[in-house]
Amino acid sequence: MKKPIRVAITGAAGNIGYSLAFPIAAGDMLGKDQPVILQLVELPMAIQGLHGVAMELDDCAYPLLHGIEVADNAAQGFKDADVVMLVGAKPRGPGQTRADLIRENGPIFTGQGDAIDQNAAEDVKVIVVGNPCNTNALIAASRAKRTNKANFTAMTRLDQNRATGQLAKKLGIAPAAVKDVFIWGNHSDTMVPDFSLGYVHINGEKKPVSAAVPAEWLAGDFDKTVRTRGKAIIDARGKSSAASAAQAAIDHIHDWFLGSGDNSVVSMAVPSDGSYGIPEGLVYSFPVRVTGGWKYEIVTGLPIDAAMQVRIDGSTKELLAEREAVKDLL
Amino acid sequence: MKKPIRVAITGAAGNIGYSLAFPIAAGDMLGKDQPVILQLVELPMAIQGLHGVAMELDDCAYPLLHGIEVADNAAQGFKDADVVMLVGAKPRGPGQTRADLIRENGPIFTGQGDAIDQNAAEDVKVIVVGNPCNTNALIAASRAKRTNKANFTAMTRLDQNRATGQLAKKLGIAPAAVKDVFIWGNHSDTMVPDFSLGYVHINGEKKPVSAAVPAEWLAGDFDKTVRTRGKAIIDARGKSSAASAAQAAIDHIHDWFLGSGDNSVVSMAVPSDGSYGIPEGLVYSFPVRVTGGWKYEIVTGLPIDAAMQVRIDGSTKELLAEREAVKDLL
Repeated sequence: MKKPIRVAITGAAGNIGYSLAFPIAAGDMLGKDQPVILQLVELPMAIQGLHGVAMELDDCAYPLLHGIEVADNAAQGFKDADVVMLVGAKPRGPGQTRADLIRENGPIFTGQGDAIDQNAAEDVKVIVVGNPCNTNALIAASRAKRTNKANFTAMTRLDQNRATGQLAKKLGIAPAAVKDVFIWGNHSDTMVPDFSLGYVHINGEKKPVSAAVPAEWLAGDFDKTVRTRGKAIIDARGKSSAASAAQAAIDHIHDWFLGSGDNSVVSMAVPSDGSYGIPEGLVYSFPVRVTGGWKYEIVTGLPIDAAMQVRIDGSTKELLAEREAVKDLL
Repeated sequence: MKKPIRVAITGAAGNIGYSLAFPIAAGDMLGKDQPVILQLVELPMAIQGLHGVAMELDDCAYPLLHGIEVADNAAQGFKDADVVMLVGAKPRGPGQTRADLIRENGPIFTGQGDAIDQNAAEDVKVIVVGNPCNTNALIAASRAKRTNKANFTAMTRLDQNRATGQLAKKLGIAPAAVKDVFIWGNHSDTMVPDFSLGYVHINGEKKPVSAAVPAEWLAGDFDKTVRTRGKAIIDARGKSSAASAAQAAIDHIHDWFLGSGDNSVVSMAVPSDGSYGIPEGLVYSFPVRVTGGWKYEIVTGLPIDAAMQVRIDGSTKELLAEREAVKDLL
């Protein structure tokens, strides 16, 4: 039997956490033959609810779930963790600006970065889901001394999945027939959905996305829908995305660990290595290839046209401003 | 490619429905190579939220999800459905008795039984999750003229999973090492957890449950915990079981369709064929074997001792009283 993988989740009694813990225990994230131990973390005030979540996990009798640990602090919760999923964050309050939100969340992520560096497995892999996720990941990564900064990532897979879903719906095909659509930049409305590599399988033919759907739809409704989908979900449900965010986090970690299959391109926000002129260290969504074994490789050498470059620069500028706003924490 | 299986879910925007739709779309219920079409049904007043759920399902870009249909009525929602999951039901109000609850839900399930019989696939498989699930299933089954009454089932898998989870926790072993524990009777506190067939794998040895844990624990805490777990979850979470109920419904359908693996025994509440003296037609939880292909077989010939017989009779008596209370609907 394989050694269990320890997965720590913050905000584990919240809506995304609740949608996340069960499929991980069922083997959807790390494989149907991979035992897991869940290390669930919540604020002290949410600990009773978290015990309820742990009871329900017991009640599922998941064959692969070899342990459930509950903690009200990050140091204990991240102990020996192989994967840390930073889901909990302060949500934006009424009238609060994005800058305020960044300042409020900053100290949470310095603390969690320290707790990871001091307690988790040395080769821990981190995904930040809590927003503003790119800059939260930047802050956490800045505390990495023992652990590897390159393993601190943020989630833009939800945006990619939304783009894939929109294309599938437009064409009336299954999402599996849409490949290699990805996202540049910040998980915010400056993100840049990119379909230049993308293709679809339709009626037995493989076609570039640009040949399958009208250019004006791609530049208009498609782009806007992907970038503003979070708000549309809130408007429909009265609550923010939970199950779809959880699924995207599972996809992100699944593909990082086990590969995306067929060498397809996926989106991960990772510390920039300077590719495409993105300032080094910014946690930026790139097209990456993941072939398994906890490796990712930024796809290099893609041609960027002038219009795309302007948009990429816009997202970079926003992330540089976010970095500036928290520079005292780095 | 396999033909998609159509799965209809009522109460699809509710808490259990929300926990159910996503893993089904991910392939956890019907297999990782089985396309599905989800037919989501809600009351008209909940339709906006349901559209939000459908949007989030789109946003997951599930490779196997070949369609999402949304309906505000059962006739449309059940059209050609291969599987119908009756999750929605009126919850018990403050001060309401179980008898009141049965009377309130009865008409919902006559309507849904008719809608199934008139619209679903002829060999449709039905699971009732909404409580009182056994009698709700009895009512729905009573409307089956074209469809097969034996395919109207109710969920006691959650109770079995809870029993399995408690044993695993007590012994400090993974739930996969606990087998063949099951539930008799009604999904209510008269249910009878039965460990007489059950065994565990512990330290490389296969042992009967009765040899692995103390008899007084089995008769005391274990039995009580399993029977009253629903309330304990509400006390801890402030909300009733959702993800664990959804997982149990997935397990029920998964095993019915694909088998339980290793010929293990599972619990399903099914229309009695008279086995063990249970009055014919009562929807009663039995030990069943499921080897796949939508077949189940009640395990016959188990020895029942006098004490167990008294408890089984108690659950039978309760279900007969429930049937009596709705006899005008049958």
